[in-house]
Amino acid sequence: MLAHTNTQQLTKVVIFGVGLIGGSFALALKKQAAVKQIVGVERNQNALERALGLGIIDVAGADLAAALDGADLVLIAAPVAQTEAILRAIYPHLQAQTIVTDAGSTKADVVEAARRALEDKISQFVPAHPIAGRESNGPDAAIANLYQGKKLVITALPENSPSALNLVANTWQRCGAVPYYLNPAEHDQVFAAVSHLPHLLAYALVDQITEQPQAELRFQYAASGFRDFTRIAGSSPEMWRDISLANRAALLVELTHYQAQLQRISNALQHSDGEQLLAIFSNAQAARQRWSQSIESAEPPPKEGGD
Amino acid sequence: MLAHTNTQQLTKVVIFGVGLIGGSFALALKKQAAVKQIVGVERNQNALERALGLGIIDVAGADLAAALDGADLVLIAAPVAQTEAILRAIYPHLQAQTIVTDAGSTKADVVEAARRALEDKISQFVPAHPIAGRESNGPDAAIANLYQGKKLVITALPENSPSALNLVANTWQRCGAVPYYLNPAEHDQVFAAVSHLPHLLAYALVDQITEQPQAELRFQYAASGFRDFTRIAGSSPEMWRDISLANRAALLVELTHYQAQLQRISNALQHSDGEQLLAIFSNAQAARQRWSQSIESAEPPPKEGGD
Repeated sequence: MLAHTNTQQLTKVVIFGVGLIGGSFALALKKQAAVKQIVGVERNQNALERALGLGIIDVAGADLAAALDGADLVLIAAPVAQTEAILRAIYPHLQAQTIVTDAGSTKADVVEAARRALEDKISQFVPAHPIAGRESNGPDAAIANLYQGKKLVITALPENSPSALNLVANTWQRCGAVPYYLNPAEHDQVFAAVSHLPHLLAYALVDQITEQPQAELRFQYAASGFRDFTRIAGSSPEMWRDISLANRAALLVELTHYQAQLQRISNALQHSDGEQLLAIFSNAQAARQRWSQSIESAEPPPKEGGD
Repeated sequence: MLAHTNTQQLTKVVIFGVGLIGGSFALALKKQAAVKQIVGVERNQNALERALGLGIIDVAGADLAAALDGADLVLIAAPVAQTEAILRAIYPHLQAQTIVTDAGSTKADVVEAARRALEDKISQFVPAHPIAGRESNGPDAAIANLYQGKKLVITALPENSPSALNLVANTWQRCGAVPYYLNPAEHDQVFAAVSHLPHLLAYALVDQITEQPQAELRFQYAASGFRDFTRIAGSSPEMWRDISLANRAALLVELTHYQAQLQRISNALQHSDGEQLLAIFSNAQAARQRWSQSIESAEPPPKEGGD
């Protein structure tokens, strides 16, 4: 196998799903002149043509055998529920030199799907998750700097070779991302806590308000606190249904803890227990400030963000 | 009584609490040359001197009789739990021409406290709530444009005269705020739903993560979705303890609904009921997008916001 370095140009990258995530990956690689040819594969014909028109991809791949022939790297940037079907379609055409990676927000289920679909070629699959996004979707939302300074989590398989890991890590680094390594279960627990549960909670709050009497009056007085708290409720419902189901075991653990936490707060309110409320609020405020100082100094907030 | 108009200069405004809310009110009035003299009253001597040094106030009021003598308007911008004590201290010195208003985030409890404290002078008290804020506090956080384009909710009392309401509404309008009217119970229900509950939920999430194994690992991977969802968990714990207790009846109603909502979501997850999840997420997304279009077009997001 070739040793891939940060400066070597790839011959061919194939991207399944040319929306925000896949399209931004393509634009970043093009900006760095990191690849000779980008082939897009996409079920949505309009999106495929749009991506071609916007110069995000060079070729709209129709025939999988042709698309995959001579590919260095394949990125699957479709909703996680489609990963297994895509990998099964890839399998017969997957050449020995090609490395496949994904951009799914959950990893344990993706690894299971990949093992079922790729069987003896599993070493060629490097599961990964770029921690970046926006609320808008589709090729028109793609931007070259989406991954600048953002984390890329690689949940390496024991079968992955160092050169396979390096190819994925280095290609994402050329998009501006910073690679980190977790195991799949760890990944899913971490993101259930800091991303998937908050999405559920934000959707739950907005849905609740719509079902109340005087919903319009309530929305009318919602201000900037509400705006930021519910920003993630503007995310794609289909994508988050898939993520919730794919990571439901870890998500249920977090949700159950959270329900117990809310019951503690409800009890404190019922008993007008200001000390208990203050303890929870103070601990949270201090932790939020520490987080803000340590993380936001490393990753300055973008104008519009998501994950 | 004098008819106050938008262009008339007030002689004297007294502000109890010269932090973010009171200080920003003072700076906005000064910018408009809307008042001859601003007197600050504040338990925290350092904050009082700082406000004087920053030119937020003209006079640091020590003696209440002198501070209130000849005042057109008094703003109470201290934590809501202190409102009654401040009103009791004001009462003996409150002259007939002076109107008192407040900036508390809850209103039913403030009205009750005002009726107890002001008794026969209750008509001089106009309860109000400016819907604006930042995470930072104290005189140094005060800015002249904090209220620009923001709502001011007035929960008028039956005893308030039109001229008293006009004085409060017009003075806030000169700070850039837009007056709206609700009754106190309505106000408290609305803000329990769109502000107080989200604050509880954000504090609850951050506190929960700190208590988990691998808390540091989780915080390390928290990204922009977490940042925005938990921004309000950076707010003052004391202030939000007071608000939670002051509005606990309405807040418990919202929290109980929310707990039932989370149980529905938990059941859907347990049964892998993607349709139910999609229904909740889609309804929320559509409502969030409608809200964003209708409200944010009227009130462009500030660089840093809060409520």
